[in-house]
Amino acid sequence: MSTEHTVAASRCTMTEIVLPNDTNGLGNMMGGRLLHLMDKCAAISAQRHARRVCVTASVDNVEFQRPIRESNVVVVESQVNRAFRTSMEVELNVWAENPRDGTRRKCNRAFYTFVALSEDGHPIEVPQIVPETARQEERFKAAGKRRDVRLVLAGRLSLDEANHLQDDMVEAVRTARDSE
Amino acid sequence: MSTEHTVAASRCTMTEIVLPNDTNGLGNMMGGRLLHLMDKCAAISAQRHARRVCVTASVDNVEFQRPIRESNVVVVESQVNRAFRTSMEVELNVWAENPRDGTRRKCNRAFYTFVALSEDGHPIEVPQIVPETARQEERFKAAGKRRDVRLVLAGRLSLDEANHLQDDMVEAVRTARDSE
Amino acid sequence: MSTEHTVAASRCTMTEIVLPNDTNGLGNMMGGRLLHLMDKCAAISAQRHARRVCVTASVDNVEFQRPIRESNVVVVESQVNRAFRTSMEVELNVWAENPRDGTRRKCNRAFYTFVALSEDGHPIEVPQIVPETARQEERFKAAGKRRDVRLVLAGRLSLDEANHLQDDMVEAVRTARDSE
Amino acid sequence: MSTEHTVAASRCTMTEIVLPNDTNGLGNMMGGRLLHLMDKCAAISAQRHARRVCVTASVDNVEFQRPIRESNVVVVESQVNRAFRTSMEVELNVWAENPRDGTRRKCNRAFYTFVALSEDGHPIEVPQIVPETARQEERFKAAGKRRDVRLVLAGRLSLDEANHLQDDMVEAVRTARDSE
Amino acid sequence: MSTEHTVAASRCTMTEIVLPNDTNGLGNMMGGRLLHLMDKCAAISAQRHARRVCVTASVDNVEFQRPIRESNVVVVESQVNRAFRTSMEVELNVWAENPRDGTRRKCNRAFYTFVALSEDGHPIEVPQIVPETARQEERFKAAGKRRDVRLVLAGRLSLDEANHLQDDMVEAVRTARDSE
Amino acid sequence: MSTEHTVAASRCTMTEIVLPNDTNGLGNMMGGRLLHLMDKCAAISAQRHARRVCVTASVDNVEFQRPIRESNVVVVESQVNRAFRTSMEVELNVWAENPRDGTRRKCNRAFYTFVALSEDGHPIEVPQIVPETARQEERFKAAGKRRDVRLVLAGRLSLDEANHLQDDMVEAVRTARDSE
Repeated sequence: MSTEHTVAASRCTMTEIVLPNDTNGLGNMMGGRLLHLMDKCAAISAQRHARRVCVTASVDNVEFQRPIRESNVVVVESQVNRAFRTSMEVELNVWAENPRDGTRRKCNRAFYTFVALSEDGHPIEVPQIVPETARQEERFKAAGKRRDVRLVLAGRLSLDEANHLQDDMVEAVRTARDSE
Repeated sequence: MSTEHTVAASRCTMTEIVLPNDTNGLGNMMGGRLLHLMDKCAAISAQRHARRVCVTASVDNVEFQRPIRESNVVVVESQVNRAFRTSMEVELNVWAENPRDGTRRKCNRAFYTFVALSEDGHPIEVPQIVPETARQEERFKAAGKRRDVRLVLAGRLSLDEANHLQDDMVEAVRTARDSE
Repeated sequence: MSTEHTVAASRCTMTEIVLPNDTNGLGNMMGGRLLHLMDKCAAISAQRHARRVCVTASVDNVEFQRPIRESNVVVVESQVNRAFRTSMEVELNVWAENPRDGTRRKCNRAFYTFVALSEDGHPIEVPQIVPETARQEERFKAAGKRRDVRLVLAGRLSLDEANHLQDDMVEAVRTARDSE
Repeated sequence: MSTEHTVAASRCTMTEIVLPNDTNGLGNMMGGRLLHLMDKCAAISAQRHARRVCVTASVDNVEFQRPIRESNVVVVESQVNRAFRTSMEVELNVWAENPRDGTRRKCNRAFYTFVALSEDGHPIEVPQIVPETARQEERFKAAGKRRDVRLVLAGRLSLDEANHLQDDMVEAVRTARDSE
Repeated sequence: MSTEHTVAASRCTMTEIVLPNDTNGLGNMMGGRLLHLMDKCAAISAQRHARRVCVTASVDNVEFQRPIRESNVVVVESQVNRAFRTSMEVELNVWAENPRDGTRRKCNRAFYTFVALSEDGHPIEVPQIVPETARQEERFKAAGKRRDVRLVLAGRLSLDEANHLQDDMVEAVRTARDSE
Repeated sequence: MSTEHTVAASRCTMTEIVLPNDTNGLGNMMGGRLLHLMDKCAAISAQRHARRVCVTASVDNVEFQRPIRESNVVVVESQVNRAFRTSMEVELNVWAENPRDGTRRKCNRAFYTFVALSEDGHPIEVPQIVPETARQEERFKAAGKRRDVRLVLAGRLSLDEANHLQDDMVEAVRTARDSE
């Protein structure tokens, strides 16, 4: 693994077959099972960047628009978009493949925030990420706006302090969603 | 189970011991494992209300502010706050107990949205919920505002159409959080 | 959680969806899977009362009269009926719900005995339970008779010493079963 | 597998390593996990005899006198003692081994009753077992007495009808326990 | 996913955290747990190539030279090296990462053979793979030699028929191992 | 457990029901799941012989010729064939039973090699095994030849040094396979 603190060095891919116990009574993968997979994948990205045990601090709104079927293959990809002082935004993208016809559909995009912990369990500073491409630079900036949205939603930032958000909020979220 | 479509009839409680495989390398429960439990609990609430198989449509922002330790007992409680046409908002509250000293801490509040499916897998109408107390009435109203927030965040409602949200958005989210 | 040693403070509810791996080849939940769930639920009740790690000491006769089907929801409820010196009788009641029609059936009643352990793994005294209602008082008394039955069945009490049991034995067991 | 309906043809052995998730906070195997293993082993013995899917009908009193530690090896052995019309008594014996010093301790003896099911899920007659040794003959007889105890405990046989039980009851149970 | 039958289109990556239940009493990942992960990864590669359900036909000799520790991250990568009539050779490479210092070690290389099945469960022809690079061409050739080794070891090819193997056998195996 | 270091003292039997999550989309047990079971069984045999924690060092070629179906019962039996300085060859035999008709088929034979570890995780000498029958003596000798094959395949022994293998290699492997 590279010793550079690049986005590429934080990338993680998880692939899983949807087994019977992952599904509800109609053969669709349960949302919580997918959120669990995504969390494990994101934690590995965060740890690759921080070189510390990392814990989930928050999960942004996640939508489940397309059902994933039993026996499908789920691919989860994650990367650190930006590091703040002790936290990191991890972006996740999810695809489902039908192994019998080779079709592959994008299912979800989500953002998890992780905090790095010292050995005695306290938050600890993490190195800054180094965006290397224009695409990574965009994500780095959007991550800053999404962080303000999180602080507003958590009641730790007022809309006055974050007044640019009144205009940018939806855009910040939509940018990430549409920019595939 | 009551045949009434009340909030009370939709309530579900799950209790689990945090086992070694649920934790990261520092003995804290992994966030994804908790999101998974919450999803199963919420799905049961939705199914109790709709009497249909229900699937996760979305999860609102979730924050993890207090770590839950190995061997702790996790209690998840859910109820349907409001039914829309084919979807329902389910509210979740999570506590952690230390079995050795009997202390109990509130850890999370979250909102999951579920859609009811017919036997052939299509969204199907669900009965309206009947709020019976002032507290349930408040949640019913707040659920409507949070739904607008979701539609804005999903890019399916513009801020102009939802202009009351410019003022109410943070309040809508914070109300739910503070109203325990 | 209340600091009182009441029956109510020991109550625990577990809810689970019956998944494919929980069933035999005909779609019925396997008995051992249910006994496992019941044991976890009862252990939490015992720990809530004793504020110690508790281990299963014995399980009374359990009957499985009604099959529980795949995709059903299982609800297990437990409470401490009575504390002895280092052990507690925990009562369990189990229901199965069909999520598609909302029907709910009582499936099992059972009694598990737990022993509280000190940090070095030895049995340790537990506080007495405080029955607060007539119903809890009845269960408290019946728990004493069931304990004598256990001691006789374990060969640690002769029928002469427990001669009231010759009359009360079946009644003691049946009381619990019929008193819902 | 022999086509004879002998006790030997029904024997089943399961061996498992006690993993971290099988234990409570003090490193002891949870009782419910063991009851689950025993149920799977017993079900296989019943199915070997009946050549049908078999479901647990009841579990007799089980005592847990000796803790089984993490990393120990658990050995469960089962056999059908006797077949009734549609049900079978399965005897289970459990040992724990410490893999580091080779010591092996007997931990439990228990009796589970299974019912054979037809493909449409109804109880179906099973062949009688053929005891081949004096030891198997003893168990065959004791199984009959234990069945009467079960019927009394289940309230389906009065103590008058089963009056020999007043003397034999404890003996029936204790015989099985001491006869190793 | 590309519709081309290239090596690249068959590649699969799985990433997992080594949890307590994956380890033996000394904190090392159990070999069988790794073989299981490798099999799932390889099956996905085979299915991506064949667009059929694929089943494991054989596993070549696997060596475990370096222990993988609890909390480490395991990365498994697989690809189809060559397709025969109804079977495919899948190559697997395994790395372990220490999340606390970012070090990454190569742990295993292995070869699994899969057979594609039709919907009624019979072997069915698979498309040939298209090697695109010199490195893939080498692996394609080595896969042919390893197939002869498998046939000899399975007793389905005599050493006379495969007499080139007397010279090439060790080389065929070693090539794959050293060519990273 | 006998204190003698005999083959019999190392024998281990594992029995499992094939559950839905163990199977692929066509109802066949996945090969990796079986390799995992076999590894656990073999580890117990090695530990019974060495009285140490043992880790998998290698797995010889394994073929999967007969599918094992969902709801079938899998029986794995293992024993130590021979001990070398710090390692042991464990032989595994696998059967599948159809519980509905009582038929039983031999499915696999395989050889795993384990190394015994001291408490600080280093290889440690193990006692020699004592073959007691002509059949065990044969297996003891064949294990020596298979070890040379392993060393050749691992590139740690040249074909010149092991030139007897040019004749014996296939025979060594086939002997084990055919000698049931």
